[in-house]
Amino acid sequence: MDGISIETILLQILVLFTLAKLGGMLCERVGISSVIGEIAAGILVVNSGFLFQLIGLNFDLFHLLSLDADMSLFEVLSELGVIFLLFAVGLETPFSELRKVGRTATLVAVLGVILPFFAGLTLILGLGHGQTEALFIGAAMVATSVGITARVIKDMDLTRSIESRVIIGAAVIDDVLGMIVLAVVVGIAAGGSNGIIDIVLVSATGIAFVLLVIFFGSIVLPKARKRANGKRIEPFDDSTVCVRKRKFSISPLPLAIIVCLGLSFAASYAGLAAIIGAFLAGMAFAEFKDKWPCDEDFRPINAFLVPFFFLFVGMSVDLASFGNVLVLAAIITVLAVVTKYVGCGMGALKLGRGSANIIGVGMVPRGEVGIIVATIGLSMNAVSQGMFSVVVFMSMATTIIAPFLLTWAFRRKYGECSNGDQAEVHMGEASHP
Amino acid sequence: MDGISIETILLQILVLFTLAKLGGMLCERVGISSVIGEIAAGILVVNSGFLFQLIGLNFDLFHLLSLDADMSLFEVLSELGVIFLLFAVGLETPFSELRKVGRTATLVAVLGVILPFFAGLTLILGLGHGQTEALFIGAAMVATSVGITARVIKDMDLTRSIESRVIIGAAVIDDVLGMIVLAVVVGIAAGGSNGIIDIVLVSATGIAFVLLVIFFGSIVLPKARKRANGKRIEPFDDSTVCVRKRKFSISPLPLAIIVCLGLSFAASYAGLAAIIGAFLAGMAFAEFKDKWPCDEDFRPINAFLVPFFFLFVGMSVDLASFGNVLVLAAIITVLAVVTKYVGCGMGALKLGRGSANIIGVGMVPRGEVGIIVATIGLSMNAVSQGMFSVVVFMSMATTIIAPFLLTWAFRRKYGECSNGDQAEVHMGEASHP
Repeated sequence: MDGISIETILLQILVLFTLAKLGGMLCERVGISSVIGEIAAGILVVNSGFLFQLIGLNFDLFHLLSLDADMSLFEVLSELGVIFLLFAVGLETPFSELRKVGRTATLVAVLGVILPFFAGLTLILGLGHGQTEALFIGAAMVATSVGITARVIKDMDLTRSIESRVIIGAAVIDDVLGMIVLAVVVGIAAGGSNGIIDIVLVSATGIAFVLLVIFFGSIVLPKARKRANGKRIEPFDDSTVCVRKRKFSISPLPLAIIVCLGLSFAASYAGLAAIIGAFLAGMAFAEFKDKWPCDEDFRPINAFLVPFFFLFVGMSVDLASFGNVLVLAAIITVLAVVTKYVGCGMGALKLGRGSANIIGVGMVPRGEVGIIVATIGLSMNAVSQGMFSVVVFMSMATTIIAPFLLTWAFRRKYGECSNGDQAEVHMGEASHP
Repeated sequence: MDGISIETILLQILVLFTLAKLGGMLCERVGISSVIGEIAAGILVVNSGFLFQLIGLNFDLFHLLSLDADMSLFEVLSELGVIFLLFAVGLETPFSELRKVGRTATLVAVLGVILPFFAGLTLILGLGHGQTEALFIGAAMVATSVGITARVIKDMDLTRSIESRVIIGAAVIDDVLGMIVLAVVVGIAAGGSNGIIDIVLVSATGIAFVLLVIFFGSIVLPKARKRANGKRIEPFDDSTVCVRKRKFSISPLPLAIIVCLGLSFAASYAGLAAIIGAFLAGMAFAEFKDKWPCDEDFRPINAFLVPFFFLFVGMSVDLASFGNVLVLAAIITVLAVVTKYVGCGMGALKLGRGSANIIGVGMVPRGEVGIIVATIGLSMNAVSQGMFSVVVFMSMATTIIAPFLLTWAFRRKYGECSNGDQAEVHMGEASHP
């Protein structure tokens, strides 16, 4: 940010944030996830010179805001945004709930991870790209966005249906599996070597980190706490209340931020993606929700920071070179939809064809997770600019079509939804998954 | 941030935030404002090399974290933090309340602004410093920190006493006057010229900006809204409810952030301090609290961002060169306490000597506002490094002693406080004023 005045930086933040929020609001007005609008705002800003040239005008917002001089501030804001976003997703994924979900959800999740991953991997390898890039594309096709699916179900007032419970459960397991796949892929990309021993070693490190943190943060600590609480309450009542009150006065937000940033750094230091640490920190904190509630506190922080991540994603898309990869983007999108639908549908077949149809369709949206994977690949120079645009296109497309498909599938089984006209349009900060 | 990896930046943010929160928590444990602990953390980090050298050790945290390479990220985080902090202070200052406070509070505020300002100005000019620096020191001695005073009163459970109402009212008017003084001083410093016509012109611009924003944001808009509401509700009931519900769905936080950043940029563009715009934006929003409540949303955002401002303040203090200005710092501190006490006490004399004593003492703490003024002076090269340290010392000292003085003054009038042992120790994020 050398040479750029703090006044200019204020203007950059103001304009980018305003455009992202406007884009998000417009999308929500027409019933699409606000994420799409925020990415679109980023694409518009960085490509404004190119777009205005098409209609014969000379106007470049990116240049006008001096954004071409230095983007490092927005890289940091974007990183903080995605770290806090993944923490918030983790917060909604208590490990104890995960165990209750049952076999069907697990089967749905596992099949829905394996099929897209290998389909993507095979296609990209078949097109003659490198192994690392193929691994990243495969990984980007894996993870379903829990947020978007959950929101559609909530809007339709169908959270208590059996399909909805399986979808949410599977999406959560799918998230954890996606993180493990990502950990392995990043490890391989960072390792650089292609030897099979290296791959095994790196995979083992990634899986070990994830399992270790889950084991301590989500199993050992909560159990230790329960035992300690149990011991303390029995013998003398008054002093217990006193001790408890004092403990409660440690406010949860700073603690959550410190643990989140700490595990993010630890993951990054161990050669994994920082967001894996953030996600696991969130999962651990989810077990302590009653003692340290902090989901409400992360809502406004994320309302401010997360748009910078999606803006940054949009600003990494180069429309001028997009024409070359349009066909590939279409193929990958179709592949992403079909493999997820078939994989998850197969896993849910024993619930009947109607339910399998709903569940298959419900797991289609990739949303932010696929993009996050591709962003990491781009930053490690493992994914090309063109391939990055392909993943952004796939994520946006699956996210846009999923709500329509899901509404259709639910109506097909349950008939016209009586609550259809109740579907509210929420605007602004409540929208991030 | 060139050449520093995102991993190192994560570590910087993690370590600085953790130290600030630890410092803040420690201070609150012993009953001092957490602000002091956060500044102290910054002082420790930047002076760790010097301090460890004193005990013969070689350890420099500042260098270890690569903070010496580039501080621009923390400059931006600090600026965002102070902008949002002043917005939150403005949120607690609705203009409509200001008008109700009455003559005593106004007199207390005005006398409590004039005396310290001219005392500081005269002293610094008398010591042979430049006019601009003297103006900044005068301005830094003006503003009482509403937050700290209000918190002490709240802790003593005396919010309904007549003195408390006058103190809070006067502190609010004092804030507005402080902003006007700051606007004028910054204008003069930016103008550079010393001609009397320039000073008048620049003062006029500053005052005009403040009054214009207050007039539109806090008087015209709320009235227009009331009239519009009045008109709309009468004729047809059902559709009104519908229209209202829709309007409410615009979530207040993004709007507040955009207005806050927008007015901050406008103030900065007009040659004033950005925080003046933020404060006025908060004041305007305070009038719409029922429609767009956002104070709760700014609490967590500020819990994350504001510590970076106080850290940054601490990191601007050079202990090695502090020995030279220690005497001056002590003189300025005594002057700041005495002038504020006398000025405000005189303004409140008609309430009786006991009450005047309380009110004079209650207005003493300068807290963050004096430091903010000095930071702006430092960034404009109008205030020297040594003089900046003097102001930080004065702000910290007045803030530390004020609660003790205030407790003494209240007890002197009201006798032993029955609720003394109820004074709670809040920790963590709830602490920022």
